[in-house]
Amino acid sequence: MSHYSAPLRDMHFVLRELAGIEQVGKLPGYEEATPDTVDAIIEEAAKFASGVLAPLNAPGDQQGAVWRDSGVTMPTGFLEAYGQFIENGWNGIGAEPEYGGQGMPYTVVAAVNEMWKASNMAFSLCPLLTTGAIEAITLNGSPELKAAYLPKMIEGSWTGTMNLTEPQAGSDLALVRARAVPQGDGTYKVFGQKIFITYGEHDMTENIIHLVLARTPDAPEGVKGISLFVVPKFILNADGTPGARNDLRCVSIEHKLGIHASPTCVMAYGDNGGATGYLVGKENEGLKYMFVMMNAARFAVGLEGVAIAERAYQQALQYARDRVQGRDLADGSGPVPIIRHPDIRRMLMMMKSQTEAMRALAYVVAAAHDAARRHPDAEERKRNLAFVEFMIPIVKGWCTETGIDVASLGIQIHGGMGFIEETGAAQHWRDSRITTIYEGTTGIQAMDLIGRKIVRDGGATIKSVIAAMQQTAAQLGQAQGEDFAAIQAGFARGLQAFTDAALYIGGNVQKDIKGVFAGAVPFLKLAGIVCGGWQMARAALVAQEMLAAGGGDAGFYKAKIATARFFAEHLLSQAPGLAATMIKGGASTLAVPEEFL
Amino acid sequence: MSHYSAPLRDMHFVLRELAGIEQVGKLPGYEEATPDTVDAIIEEAAKFASGVLAPLNAPGDQQGAVWRDSGVTMPTGFLEAYGQFIENGWNGIGAEPEYGGQGMPYTVVAAVNEMWKASNMAFSLCPLLTTGAIEAITLNGSPELKAAYLPKMIEGSWTGTMNLTEPQAGSDLALVRARAVPQGDGTYKVFGQKIFITYGEHDMTENIIHLVLARTPDAPEGVKGISLFVVPKFILNADGTPGARNDLRCVSIEHKLGIHASPTCVMAYGDNGGATGYLVGKENEGLKYMFVMMNAARFAVGLEGVAIAERAYQQALQYARDRVQGRDLADGSGPVPIIRHPDIRRMLMMMKSQTEAMRALAYVVAAAHDAARRHPDAEERKRNLAFVEFMIPIVKGWCTETGIDVASLGIQIHGGMGFIEETGAAQHWRDSRITTIYEGTTGIQAMDLIGRKIVRDGGATIKSVIAAMQQTAAQLGQAQGEDFAAIQAGFARGLQAFTDAALYIGGNVQKDIKGVFAGAVPFLKLAGIVCGGWQMARAALVAQEMLAAGGGDAGFYKAKIATARFFAEHLLSQAPGLAATMIKGGASTLAVPEEFL
Repeated sequence: MSHYSAPLRDMHFVLRELAGIEQVGKLPGYEEATPDTVDAIIEEAAKFASGVLAPLNAPGDQQGAVWRDSGVTMPTGFLEAYGQFIENGWNGIGAEPEYGGQGMPYTVVAAVNEMWKASNMAFSLCPLLTTGAIEAITLNGSPELKAAYLPKMIEGSWTGTMNLTEPQAGSDLALVRARAVPQGDGTYKVFGQKIFITYGEHDMTENIIHLVLARTPDAPEGVKGISLFVVPKFILNADGTPGARNDLRCVSIEHKLGIHASPTCVMAYGDNGGATGYLVGKENEGLKYMFVMMNAARFAVGLEGVAIAERAYQQALQYARDRVQGRDLADGSGPVPIIRHPDIRRMLMMMKSQTEAMRALAYVVAAAHDAARRHPDAEERKRNLAFVEFMIPIVKGWCTETGIDVASLGIQIHGGMGFIEETGAAQHWRDSRITTIYEGTTGIQAMDLIGRKIVRDGGATIKSVIAAMQQTAAQLGQAQGEDFAAIQAGFARGLQAFTDAALYIGGNVQKDIKGVFAGAVPFLKLAGIVCGGWQMARAALVAQEMLAAGGGDAGFYKAKIATARFFAEHLLSQAPGLAATMIKGGASTLAVPEEFL
Repeated sequence: MSHYSAPLRDMHFVLRELAGIEQVGKLPGYEEATPDTVDAIIEEAAKFASGVLAPLNAPGDQQGAVWRDSGVTMPTGFLEAYGQFIENGWNGIGAEPEYGGQGMPYTVVAAVNEMWKASNMAFSLCPLLTTGAIEAITLNGSPELKAAYLPKMIEGSWTGTMNLTEPQAGSDLALVRARAVPQGDGTYKVFGQKIFITYGEHDMTENIIHLVLARTPDAPEGVKGISLFVVPKFILNADGTPGARNDLRCVSIEHKLGIHASPTCVMAYGDNGGATGYLVGKENEGLKYMFVMMNAARFAVGLEGVAIAERAYQQALQYARDRVQGRDLADGSGPVPIIRHPDIRRMLMMMKSQTEAMRALAYVVAAAHDAARRHPDAEERKRNLAFVEFMIPIVKGWCTETGIDVASLGIQIHGGMGFIEETGAAQHWRDSRITTIYEGTTGIQAMDLIGRKIVRDGGATIKSVIAAMQQTAAQLGQAQGEDFAAIQAGFARGLQAFTDAALYIGGNVQKDIKGVFAGAVPFLKLAGIVCGGWQMARAALVAQEMLAAGGGDAGFYKAKIATARFFAEHLLSQAPGLAATMIKGGASTLAVPEEFL
């Protein structure tokens, strides 16, 4: 079984030098996030991730969550680990202090969450879903709802779920059919079946708080008639403790490709008269509330891509150092560890460079999220929010697609052993495969990027992003040496391709919407590579400064520059081709009549 | 569970128009492969694949092969299916008529094998390994060995295996330690452990004939001291029937990511005094014999990529037609089947165009293999053999890498259902993952391509391939219309990139072998895309001729041209980036010191 150590050196570098954690800690309300506190949190989280969560990852996969009529039993060790997790206060580090949270910035939470996801993705989904439910209640719930549910949920004593999907309503929530009938006493009776409910049932806590999308009797059709309800597994007593069992149950759990320890539930509401539910906010506004939470959820899934890539990389690197096979290509000596073979090196560098680029982009977006929430200047808040909203589909779509690729390289480096389940490399690949699907497929992220994030504001945000990239390009142009010449050339070509494709979208989306959207995913991939290359270029510039300042750690900084160059030559090199596909490939995508597919 | 229908329309097109099956049937010794016979074989194989093998694919995955101390039990239905398979004569269709084979050309065998692999990859590995063993004995065995083993193996009543790998000797066979001690009576006693032995044990036949690599006592070190032995599970009686149990056993089978129905065995030889073995050919020549068989084996694994892509495509296409979700992007009507959404179309076209390109390339290489074996003109045989040897690593490496990508798109089209094992889309992806590893990883194929197939003959073969491609490019230049302009532009750019990269290899491999080999896999991918694009361009030119001739089937031919254009705009567009990575990316791949990875 593979070990996991949080990549603290790179995390600190990205937090400090690229995401500007010190500036984040100066935003009003984040004063407690001092450098010392942040460092302490990161160190402790690293210990918990490698010491408690990582060892349960492979056994959890093998054992899986088990459904019985009486409920769902989690794999051995999960209950205890969850107990320690909430006892140590990890569940609420990002939540509002008013209800017991620690109120840490998103930037810090992102780094901590990367560790939970990398050490045990299946486990991490439980607090992830709880966080989503907390956010829904915090943003839209009545004071009574907040008081009744938030403290226990933030503490982690009760977990939360999100019930959106139904068999006929996956990506298209307009088709939701679950019903909620008002009882005249402020409560509702909820009826219907929901599928793909992550941690819809488990044995780790005394209550589970379901957030359920349903239609009231007179609701309009489509997405404008969906309301959001709190439906607890156990209805609360007058004293706030869990009381009577509510009319809901987990009918079965799915047999999945990966994340076996995370129970994916089919939930039945109201089979015996109706499940008691409480409206969140107003009727028919449910989808709006969901959309507000969606950014956070999509960002979190994007982080799963970063995390699984890091985990797969660590395991492959160890194997490449240990496995002795074949001779040195240049001098014939050996047998040598396979890390000496150029193609193994190439695969490791593909893994390393993309993981670092994704981490940098994700943390930078998290920091902008903090500024969007807490910056004293309204213009700055607005500017940062636009940046975050633009970047979310890129972080979600690109990091998850890349996470799968990186996990696949991890298998490849293991050779035949990679195909044997006991090795553990295959689990990362299997686990990663859901990330490009849930919380909106890559196709949906790409449509969001073009439709809502580029076209809707007339290109204002993408122009400002391109302007910021041009500044970095200019800085690269002033840097010396062969490495920076290569980084500059690669980034400039990538930026040009990105700009060309963006202009193509602006000029053609009205007259040829299908043709433009046929290139949406290639465009998203292009955007991811160029944004990742941008952050790697920034990282290289910082590294060069650090080297010039001579403060030590030269090996790390030199490796960062070499890794940025690798990214430019092996990833940014794909940008012109992606732009060409985006710009020219729409017609041929749609040309073959359906019956000849 | 998904259905499979052999893609007969495209298979016939490729066989006739691109691979030239009629010319193949005129080669001396292939006269029985008349168009009528070939058609009949293809039709019958299609029925067997969809009717018998395909329905066992998903149940075989779920049940898996089961090891017990007494042996390995195959999943329900496999024994009966195998019985029918050999009863119908499928096992020997490519084998020598002298020993009971049908002597069909490789081209026909390739098409038939694609069907076995697509309908049930795990099943298909059994006859695949038997074929390898048959070939080893046919090419190198003594008349006595041939007479004793070939008839039963060609018939399929006995299966064959290949025992190469040991725990410390995977890709590097120099490290093989298994021993073979001569007994003075012409036989040897074989000792040692072998791993990853496909169908090393099963309950479908009365004997299993193992081909085992081992060292004799005085053998030189390294690859020059390896000999090849026939080691039957049951030693033959004087009358040729299986008699005493030999001293070998299956110790365990692997718990794998995919191909669960194919038992991957750990084999122990000689635990009780030595397993009786018979030398194949001469001592210390074992690796040479293996290399001769390797082309066929690598080609066969490349076909697995084609096959799994076809299977995944068929399943995804059906789902995309059936699943109703979301509204039409242009007119807002709906909900519509998801096949109407541009990104779903793009994914289907990625699957379709790459599958067709891979099939075309594979069958063309098979036809060249036939010409290399049977053409009356020695020069033509030599020319075709060089072409085949050049193309084998491309077919193996590119088709398998692409097969995984295509299977992944199949999951993505299914959305959340793709992650649920019952849907079956995930199995194709899991099954496909071994194909880039066994019979030499993609990295090894890429090194073979550069080292043995380009550098060794001073670039003579690649020059002739490029010259042939230039002829196709010239023909494209004379074709009319927007589609051909796009195909021509894409192919010309791809060919230029391929040529540039090839020249770079020629100019730099001596002075910077590691830097050049660091780009070996990007180069192999580039070669695959350009070779695939070449065949799609040829296909489009034929389709245009057919349309001009007006013989019907216009829909198929128009779709072929549109698909070729899609391939040019979505795949060939990647070629310049891959060439740039190959040419510039060597130094940065190797720049980071090992301790900073």
